[in-house]
Amino acid sequence: MMAFIQALTVGVDIGGTKVAAGVVDPEGNILERLRRDTPSTSPQATEDTIADVVAELRSRYEVTAVGIGAAGWIDVTGASVLFSPHLAWRHEPLRDAVRRRVRLPVIIENDANAAAWAEWRFGAGQGESHLVCVTLGTGIGGAVVTDGVMLRGKYGVAGEFGHMTIVPGGHRCECGNRGCWEQYASGNSLVREARELAASGSPVAQNLLDRVGGDPLRITGPSVTEAAKDGDPVAVELLEEVGRWLGVGLANLAAAFDPGTFVVGGGVSEAGDLFLGPARDTFKRSLTGRGFRPEAQIQRAALGNEAGLVGAADLARENIRLFRRRRRRRRPASERLRERVDRLADI
Amino acid sequence: MMAFIQALTVGVDIGGTKVAAGVVDPEGNILERLRRDTPSTSPQATEDTIADVVAELRSRYEVTAVGIGAAGWIDVTGASVLFSPHLAWRHEPLRDAVRRRVRLPVIIENDANAAAWAEWRFGAGQGESHLVCVTLGTGIGGAVVTDGVMLRGKYGVAGEFGHMTIVPGGHRCECGNRGCWEQYASGNSLVREARELAASGSPVAQNLLDRVGGDPLRITGPSVTEAAKDGDPVAVELLEEVGRWLGVGLANLAAAFDPGTFVVGGGVSEAGDLFLGPARDTFKRSLTGRGFRPEAQIQRAALGNEAGLVGAADLARENIRLFRRRRRRRRPASERLRERVDRLADI
Repeated sequence: MMAFIQALTVGVDIGGTKVAAGVVDPEGNILERLRRDTPSTSPQATEDTIADVVAELRSRYEVTAVGIGAAGWIDVTGASVLFSPHLAWRHEPLRDAVRRRVRLPVIIENDANAAAWAEWRFGAGQGESHLVCVTLGTGIGGAVVTDGVMLRGKYGVAGEFGHMTIVPGGHRCECGNRGCWEQYASGNSLVREARELAASGSPVAQNLLDRVGGDPLRITGPSVTEAAKDGDPVAVELLEEVGRWLGVGLANLAAAFDPGTFVVGGGVSEAGDLFLGPARDTFKRSLTGRGFRPEAQIQRAALGNEAGLVGAADLARENIRLFRRRRRRRRPASERLRERVDRLADI
Repeated sequence: MMAFIQALTVGVDIGGTKVAAGVVDPEGNILERLRRDTPSTSPQATEDTIADVVAELRSRYEVTAVGIGAAGWIDVTGASVLFSPHLAWRHEPLRDAVRRRVRLPVIIENDANAAAWAEWRFGAGQGESHLVCVTLGTGIGGAVVTDGVMLRGKYGVAGEFGHMTIVPGGHRCECGNRGCWEQYASGNSLVREARELAASGSPVAQNLLDRVGGDPLRITGPSVTEAAKDGDPVAVELLEEVGRWLGVGLANLAAAFDPGTFVVGGGVSEAGDLFLGPARDTFKRSLTGRGFRPEAQIQRAALGNEAGLVGAADLARENIRLFRRRRRRRRPASERLRERVDRLADI
């Protein structure tokens, strides 16, 4: 039983408004959850908050490591957040800052990578040797897991699919460019289109508007999804349009990565086939070489919005395992052999 | 000396019109070249031609394996050409067909992969841990080499960057879709634009037309490049336009793969900075997160149009090396130790 308890790790998901933390076991179960507001003052205040939640969870569980998922670019050594849009962090040495506070091994991971890892280990991507994940929210987070290895790229910032140009000269993106994929296939793009339609005064949007008390700015992703599930044809169309853009982009990723499975997560994916149906249709039509190649599956993510927390915790465990194995390998073979004989003698 | 001779391999590059073959040494030098017309009759006739050139080269060199580069989709086991646009091959079991004829180990590789491998081993990508190559010709071939491992994807068809949609609803592509990148940044797209301009009767294209005797259909990639090098502003503009589209696409690939170096090959790249200058400018402007990330270098390929041949030959050598190592590993350690002691005793 001790071995089991020692294998618990803490996962932390830092969002723009909330810090979500949990104790995660080796099967990906969350044993306890905590949530705090993300301090708006400084990175240091956020690091204090992370240390607080870890301390509180450690008062009840024995944990061996901490994994942190953050929306942002993590440098390839895993030490710093180079850039985080929601947190206004720039070259923040998060790993050591938290490690000093909690005195445990700490890893940081991009939130989309962490979520993809969780889906590969425990969710919709289990057993897939070539997995590409996209998470549709404010933007589009992306990650690639090949034979259990995360694609990081040379500098740690691979998988930024949301900022691939899909419409030259198209919608302005927060990144400074125009026509980025996330301007067309994210949760935010669905909301933008729905609000624009409603604000135009078009009578076709009346049902959408009535559901939110008549104020276009109160239209949200879930309100569009609910309307579509109730049969509102305009809401259905809006989801179809975003789905089609998703399909075009996934076909691009199939041309580049040739995965066996795409896992699609994030709020919009909860619309299910109303959204993924059009995505699959457009994907098949846009796929180059259709008929001469096996086609990737497009699956809905299984773990919901706790995937990032679970994945970060699991990556922290994985990191310790790799570290221990490396340390073991450095000892001479004779010593390792003796230890194994001793262990067998104990039985 | 024997060891050196045994390490020679044959590389074969199957194009739509020519079969080019060569004997390649472990340093990537081509010791002898042969060229034949590609038979238009059947895959079997092409396989016979490959066997002929291999036989002829073997009459003068001791070679240990054959590597074949082909424009087309090779299945992930390396046994079959799933689809080849120029050769009209469909599910052709090329590897065994050639192996039966030449009685040597044979590997097949996508031509862009083979070229990228050569650039990584001997050319502009040497020492790069995260390399992305694009070869601009009729279309755009792509390949990714990470820490000496080629990205193949689940089914063997990764790296088809030329068919990523970059302009929704844009130019029709031979693959059946519209707006594929290779319709905007390949050698063919340069020629198409130049011919359209010349055929429009616009006086600005007079110099381009004069160079080819007044017939727009005789304008080629090299004729545009030459005109640009001579200072013709329209030719310069045409190269700039294709260069800008290259830059947009490379920025997309940087978002996805985050490489350290891009190597750009193919005929158009011979225009040098007239073409790569605008590509680099647009790349920098289109790169998401500029200022917060190190930027990939964009280099011109070093090995010219023999890269595919050299790469295929080297991959054939690599394959034998891996095979021998695997076989060696299967024998018990004691036996391997005895063999090493014997070998040392010989010295």
